[in-house]
Amino acid sequence: MTAEPTSLEAYLDAHRERRIAAYLDFLRVPSISGTPEHAADCRRAAEMLAAELRAAGAEHVEICETGGHPVVYADHLHAADAPTVLVYGHYDVQPVDPLDLWLTAPFEPFVADGRVVGRGAADDKGQVQMHVRALEAMLATRGDLPVNVKYVFEGEEESSSAHLDAWLEGDRDRLTADLALISDTGFFVGNLPAITVGLRGIMAAEIDVTGAPLDLHSGSYGGAVHNPVNALCGIVAALKGPDGRILVPGFYGDVVPLTDADRAAYAALPFDEEAFRAQVGVPALVGEVGYSTLERASARPTLDVNGMWGGFQGEGSKTIIPAHAHAKITCRLVADQDPDRIFELFRDYVLRIAPPGVTVEVRGLGGGRPSLTPIDHPAAQAAARAIEATFGVAPLYMREGGSIPVAASFETIVGLPVVLLGFANDDCQAHAPNESMVLANFETGIRTIAACFDELAMADLGAASGRGDG
Amino acid sequence: MTAEPTSLEAYLDAHRERRIAAYLDFLRVPSISGTPEHAADCRRAAEMLAAELRAAGAEHVEICETGGHPVVYADHLHAADAPTVLVYGHYDVQPVDPLDLWLTAPFEPFVADGRVVGRGAADDKGQVQMHVRALEAMLATRGDLPVNVKYVFEGEEESSSAHLDAWLEGDRDRLTADLALISDTGFFVGNLPAITVGLRGIMAAEIDVTGAPLDLHSGSYGGAVHNPVNALCGIVAALKGPDGRILVPGFYGDVVPLTDADRAAYAALPFDEEAFRAQVGVPALVGEVGYSTLERASARPTLDVNGMWGGFQGEGSKTIIPAHAHAKITCRLVADQDPDRIFELFRDYVLRIAPPGVTVEVRGLGGGRPSLTPIDHPAAQAAARAIEATFGVAPLYMREGGSIPVAASFETIVGLPVVLLGFANDDCQAHAPNESMVLANFETGIRTIAACFDELAMADLGAASGRGDG
Repeated sequence: MTAEPTSLEAYLDAHRERRIAAYLDFLRVPSISGTPEHAADCRRAAEMLAAELRAAGAEHVEICETGGHPVVYADHLHAADAPTVLVYGHYDVQPVDPLDLWLTAPFEPFVADGRVVGRGAADDKGQVQMHVRALEAMLATRGDLPVNVKYVFEGEEESSSAHLDAWLEGDRDRLTADLALISDTGFFVGNLPAITVGLRGIMAAEIDVTGAPLDLHSGSYGGAVHNPVNALCGIVAALKGPDGRILVPGFYGDVVPLTDADRAAYAALPFDEEAFRAQVGVPALVGEVGYSTLERASARPTLDVNGMWGGFQGEGSKTIIPAHAHAKITCRLVADQDPDRIFELFRDYVLRIAPPGVTVEVRGLGGGRPSLTPIDHPAAQAAARAIEATFGVAPLYMREGGSIPVAASFETIVGLPVVLLGFANDDCQAHAPNESMVLANFETGIRTIAACFDELAMADLGAASGRGDG
Repeated sequence: MTAEPTSLEAYLDAHRERRIAAYLDFLRVPSISGTPEHAADCRRAAEMLAAELRAAGAEHVEICETGGHPVVYADHLHAADAPTVLVYGHYDVQPVDPLDLWLTAPFEPFVADGRVVGRGAADDKGQVQMHVRALEAMLATRGDLPVNVKYVFEGEEESSSAHLDAWLEGDRDRLTADLALISDTGFFVGNLPAITVGLRGIMAAEIDVTGAPLDLHSGSYGGAVHNPVNALCGIVAALKGPDGRILVPGFYGDVVPLTDADRAAYAALPFDEEAFRAQVGVPALVGEVGYSTLERASARPTLDVNGMWGGFQGEGSKTIIPAHAHAKITCRLVADQDPDRIFELFRDYVLRIAPPGVTVEVRGLGGGRPSLTPIDHPAAQAAARAIEATFGVAPLYMREGGSIPVAASFETIVGLPVVLLGFANDDCQAHAPNESMVLANFETGIRTIAACFDELAMADLGAASGRGDG
């Protein structure tokens, strides 16, 4: 499907050894963003990446200061009338402990059994390398790109992207584009390529219930005063119905319903429910009536107590009525739920159902927006055609139940639809010892990225359905 | 009303100074039972008490080894065909910290403003002294007692009466009596004498809810599995209805209803509800519909969470589904609820309402029986007449919301009805700094005890209604 597959393929064939050597060199830099003693390593990785982008032909390559580890920016903007793609990845990596579970040193990468093993192989240095190599090969074989590309490779993804939002805000004008292409995800299972079309957002809150100023003797006062822990249990129990539905009025008002195509995509995912239950280690899987386990875990909003405490926690028994009780609660959100709006609905409902005899307060602990790109979005379909052309199989469409804050940042701050095109296998051990990337997927992925640029050039992005948070 | 008031009164008048000096001497012994370094002091107090009982004319005076601090036993059993009264008190005292809040040294007692001030003045050395002096005065002025009396003065009441039950079991035959007269309580408010006719029992349990073996990521799993904390909140919320009634089936089955006389006695207690609410420091007093605050706090059973915990308790938010959640729960019980039976009902109900997807376990943490002596019980009425004759005012009838385990022990192990005839004022600061006893009440109380023996001798204890835990 690509414009000049033969010459691109020939180029990639010819430079395979050098490319893999550069990939391993990049992994040798211990760019752990979360520990201050690796700050110089992070900067070294940023400089190495900037040099590779320059060598590949990128322009305006810049190591941008952020207040933390720098963002590496680069672009190539010579495709008049073609869409602009903002590519995102990160060059920083997770810490490596527990070290004793690594079979080899985490920053001495090697290739074995068809995999590159080492910290960052999959998450996300390997995927950053794939973008650099796709750019290099396209420019080397064609002298130009079919689309405009802007690269944003950050160095703090593994430490909460602490400075990215401020940097995006400050550089918003330079970052205008037609879509964000994020390569920091992976396959659903096995070696079946997948496109992640949805991420959940989050709303975090704490409920504080206060009774008397001090713990009371449960003999002298029991029966005459409300117990803050009992009261809090009543509030929490009233947040969800027996059908798994969240009872906060208006909670589902902005939820985008699953389409038939969405449900068909879920049904197409290879999933062994009993194996999943056994792996999680619970007696039964339970959730919202009317939805499958995978839908519940990624396409539907949730309400979970993350922690709760009040009164005596020691051995034996202590006969008190606790002075106060607390619950930390998060809701995972789905498009188009707005975390601020959901917090308001949650707070209002909790205060309304608060029983007499205690004081109830609700505090927000922050939030993040959900992200959803419809399967039929032209950008998603372009990525799908690129996958089919290069992997020889149509992609699965999946959603992740967690949040990738940067996806929401691109949607919210820069106003872009997001396509998550990732190449890590589900057993890649990201964040764990012996992280790895299947080398064949690294190679095919480079071709997928190139094909995706070609497909995006031909796609009518203006025909995008109105979804997203714009 | 007493047989020879003039001569008893003359004797008491004549020995007042000596009696108060002996009382202060007794308070000087720091018989703190809870701290091992005061073991010798406890034994010294026991020996001092035994000597005083002997001097007063008691027989079979014995310092009984228990494995802990000794019990002082004595008796006087020469009233053929008259009832036998088992008198209970304790010679041990509470610790004295915080020491800096005492206006003077806790074991250097003194008399000021009509009060004896010092640790143990009210709880319970002063009341033990009153029994010794009543015995002494009656034997000195009459040569005999109108009833048979057995004294049991223990030395571990302030440290959970750890060895008393075993000692009672072992000495059950020697302890047969017609009633237990416990002098370890006090007045309801002001200087209005009161008889305590009820004590609540207790049932303690823990509910443990387990989900997955480890905390789960709330993004990846949220919605697909049950959350143990949410589940536990649902269970706890289902234990009580909005009307304050406990929903465990059968829970109220053995509760003795309040009679009109009981409710009239409650209504007669001087009680300022708003002042109570303000002193407790809660926004409102709430409890079971259909009962007053005082009834709720002492005549009705309760269910309170004493402590609950699960998951993350730190600053900020942590997006987990906790692996487990726990609640410690106690029910205060009223006659005739049996703690073992209530635990079974509680456990069965909790297991029945346990939701799928989690494992729920219920463990018993012990219990104690409630105690109730009807206001119209002949022994209670004998005590009431004695109070009226000596204090010049009819007693109030009150119940305590807490438990005095020894009361239940006498009821259960020895099979006795219990009358709680106590003389401490409600501001006596028992367990707190600057404990005190109103000296006039100490003096009048000695006369009340003597009068009570006379009244009991004339009472038809065989006419007792069938209440109690027989």
